Amino acid sequence: MTFGFVNRDNMSILTDLYELTMAQVYFRDGMNKTAIFDFYTRPVENRSYLINAGLEQLIYYILNIRFTDEDIEYLRSTGKFDEDFLSYLKNFRFTGNLYAIDEGEVIFPNEPVVQVEAPLIEAQIIETFLINTLQLPILVATKAMRSYSVAKNTILIDFGLRRSHGTDAGMKAARASYIGGFAGTSNVLAGKEYGIPIFGTMAHSFILAYGDEKRAFKAFAKVYPDNTVLLVDTFDTIKGVENAVKAMKEAGIQNFKGIRLDSGDLLTLSKESRKILDQNGFKEALIIASGGINEYKIKDLLDNGAPIDGWGIGTELVVSADLPYLDCAYKLVEYDGRPVMKLSKKKITLPYKKQIYRFYEEGRIKKDLIVAYDEKVEGGRPLLKKYIHNGELTTELPSLSEIRKKAIHNFESLPDELKDINKTVHFLPQISSKIKETIDRIIKKIKGEI
Amino acid sequence: MTFGFVNRDNMSILTDLYELTMAQVYFRDGMNKTAIFDFYTRPVENRSYLINAGLEQLIYYILNIRFTDEDIEYLRSTGKFDEDFLSYLKNFRFTGNLYAIDEGEVIFPNEPVVQVEAPLIEAQIIETFLINTLQLPILVATKAMRSYSVAKNTILIDFGLRRSHGTDAGMKAARASYIGGFAGTSNVLAGKEYGIPIFGTMAHSFILAYGDEKRAFKAFAKVYPDNTVLLVDTFDTIKGVENAVKAMKEAGIQNFKGIRLDSGDLLTLSKESRKILDQNGFKEALIIASGGINEYKIKDLLDNGAPIDGWGIGTELVVSADLPYLDCAYKLVEYDGRPVMKLSKKKITLPYKKQIYRFYEEGRIKKDLIVAYDEKVEGGRPLLKKYIHNGELTTELPSLSEIRKKAIHNFESLPDELKDINKTVHFLPQISSKIKETIDRIIKKIKGEI
Repeated sequence: MTFGFVNRDNMSILTDLYELTMAQVYFRDGMNKTAIFDFYTRPVENRSYLINAGLEQLIYYILNIRFTDEDIEYLRSTGKFDEDFLSYLKNFRFTGNLYAIDEGEVIFPNEPVVQVEAPLIEAQIIETFLINTLQLPILVATKAMRSYSVAKNTILIDFGLRRSHGTDAGMKAARASYIGGFAGTSNVLAGKEYGIPIFGTMAHSFILAYGDEKRAFKAFAKVYPDNTVLLVDTFDTIKGVENAVKAMKEAGIQNFKGIRLDSGDLLTLSKESRKILDQNGFKEALIIASGGINEYKIKDLLDNGAPIDGWGIGTELVVSADLPYLDCAYKLVEYDGRPVMKLSKKKITLPYKKQIYRFYEEGRIKKDLIVAYDEKVEGGRPLLKKYIHNGELTTELPSLSEIRKKAIHNFESLPDELKDINKTVHFLPQISSKIKETIDRIIKKIKGEI
Repeated sequence: MTFGFVNRDNMSILTDLYELTMAQVYFRDGMNKTAIFDFYTRPVENRSYLINAGLEQLIYYILNIRFTDEDIEYLRSTGKFDEDFLSYLKNFRFTGNLYAIDEGEVIFPNEPVVQVEAPLIEAQIIETFLINTLQLPILVATKAMRSYSVAKNTILIDFGLRRSHGTDAGMKAARASYIGGFAGTSNVLAGKEYGIPIFGTMAHSFILAYGDEKRAFKAFAKVYPDNTVLLVDTFDTIKGVENAVKAMKEAGIQNFKGIRLDSGDLLTLSKESRKILDQNGFKEALIIASGGINEYKIKDLLDNGAPIDGWGIGTELVVSADLPYLDCAYKLVEYDGRPVMKLSKKKITLPYKKQIYRFYEEGRIKKDLIVAYDEKVEGGRPLLKKYIHNGELTTELPSLSEIRKKAIHNFESLPDELKDINKTVHFLPQISSKIKETIDRIIKKIKGEI
């Protein structure tokens, strides 16, 4: 029996077939000079900025990519590969360089977020996994930051594991939402693997199994006296809050953690619940809201004075519901020293190996400037760093909490209009005249040829 | 360094924390009688039917769930669990029963797709993974079938690995789209693990690296003379087709497989391309279209006579772009022989252990009827089958190609108006009077109590 998720470190053949067939053609032709590929995103609706995330997993993949004997046996069985090429794959290693923008940085469309400089075959073979492993973390870190940006002093918890697109997505979403300012996750394995704080309350089934709210609440509080968040909407929310209060008093709980509202009119219900909790001496008890929460609802509820202290956010966060995919690409921009680009009316590719400089004014991002790698620029902070040199990691990777701090700090440095969750502003980087002239020259050459 | 995808068979702590904290309370209270949980979907927009998928992976998980020493050590470190409960987890096995609708069956809202009958703790602990592992396959198999339903005699290939939400999603999407009538995938690992036919063409980078279309085309054809699908839109599509034709003639290719159009006005370009191919004696060469394809575009293009033979479908398929999540739930419906339900104005839960009977008229589905498990029903085909009995698999699982055949056959049996991709018809099952009366009784009891 085969298993739906992939249970091995080596993901070399989790790739599109064409990466390997093209690689075999390159191998046969001796086409293996240095190539530069850019991974970048294109302008999208509903997002004025993106938060970079997912790089650590990409680096791990690149450092460890191997073709196992079993992989090679399968490739042989397809009849599409000859023995010379299979021998090459057997010894395949990534020997090139990787430049990338740090996780937690704010990124904008058309900017190379990752730049790969490697022998053509190596740079080509990693394409599919590279896009696969970066897209979702960027989507979720960004979606998370949008909630964080309107959450004021309330806390945000990822509740999305069950609705994420498979096991890996659940892990990626927990990590990325933490980067995007969340306080923790319900995902236990993400707690273990990433050291993210884990949180949980109780399900409706818990109440239904006991058949009686007060009995269920007391049973929970007996085991978790200092950590009881009671789900109060199984039958009737206000009666549920009253039952919670009674149960906690009867159980002698001093340190009642709080309640969770999972349905209904959260504005009214949170206000009434707050009143009941306060009147009964549970001023410290928190009100957590869940059930279809997104950044728009958080803003709306808090702007209207809902006394909600925390949010359990699931589905819409982890599938990035209003933007479930990024328009992103991994494009060849230079081969053997020759800048290249595809001709397209709508989609831009920037030839050359590049660097991005970010300029600030009074602590806020003023502009990004993309230049060819060897162009001199005065001022500005270079965004692309070398992470891998000749196949070896060149720098220690930051901890997840450092990345999270960086993301929050970077978000703060955005111009105000980019922070508005109800607006889409396309903040596009400037392009150096050297790159622009190269684009014109390539277009003329192509048009002359065809 | 930790890794973004999960590389182990045992996914026991890939779960929400509350499953384990509730389980500890149940354990402490001796609350572990037989529970029945239903997994079902609710009515959604844009879908009149769903195709069931993902069951094989769920079964594998349930048969193999274990808490490793490392998992238990982590749980201990959280301070949330006592030693008695951790010892219980160390020996944890699923000992219950699992009833499910076959993969490849058409399913409708409110129907229990999976029904778990097990000691409460066991049935609760598997909740998160169960929903996680079923949601995406159902979404993708359904989205795939919608394309299949309008594709006439053209072939459909999953090109979505790079845009799927992580590694597991890429694997699930390849398998589910094959169930939904696709002919294959670009995902090599899915080819290996599931035996799905694999397909591939070439990337724009391939042309750009060679710097010249004809040179690139010939290089590819030399290695794959019988399997060359040439990407023709890197610079100018029509010139690209002409270059393809010239290159294949110069290379002496008899069996030219075809071309791929990845951008532009596919209707006009496919017609012009067909003409050029035919005029040059390549009547057998296929035209494959890709780039933002979905069922609506396929229907539109084919209805307008586009001579397209096959489709590479990526992003919108694998993230189920117009429905990126299912409104689905796993709800307790019976505990210790007592039917239960949550009180909700909008969301229905059906108490009791149940069976579903499907009725046909002239080979088409006429109605589904949901009854309590012990109710006698005349005629109709029972949909829920017992897959696991006392923790053991009771039946051999069908092959993927059998599931695929079943899905296509089941789709054919739908009433015509449900097949219309531009309509949403909510085809809801009928509920037996015994279940209805129980619902009324429970509601009265709850309202009396609160």
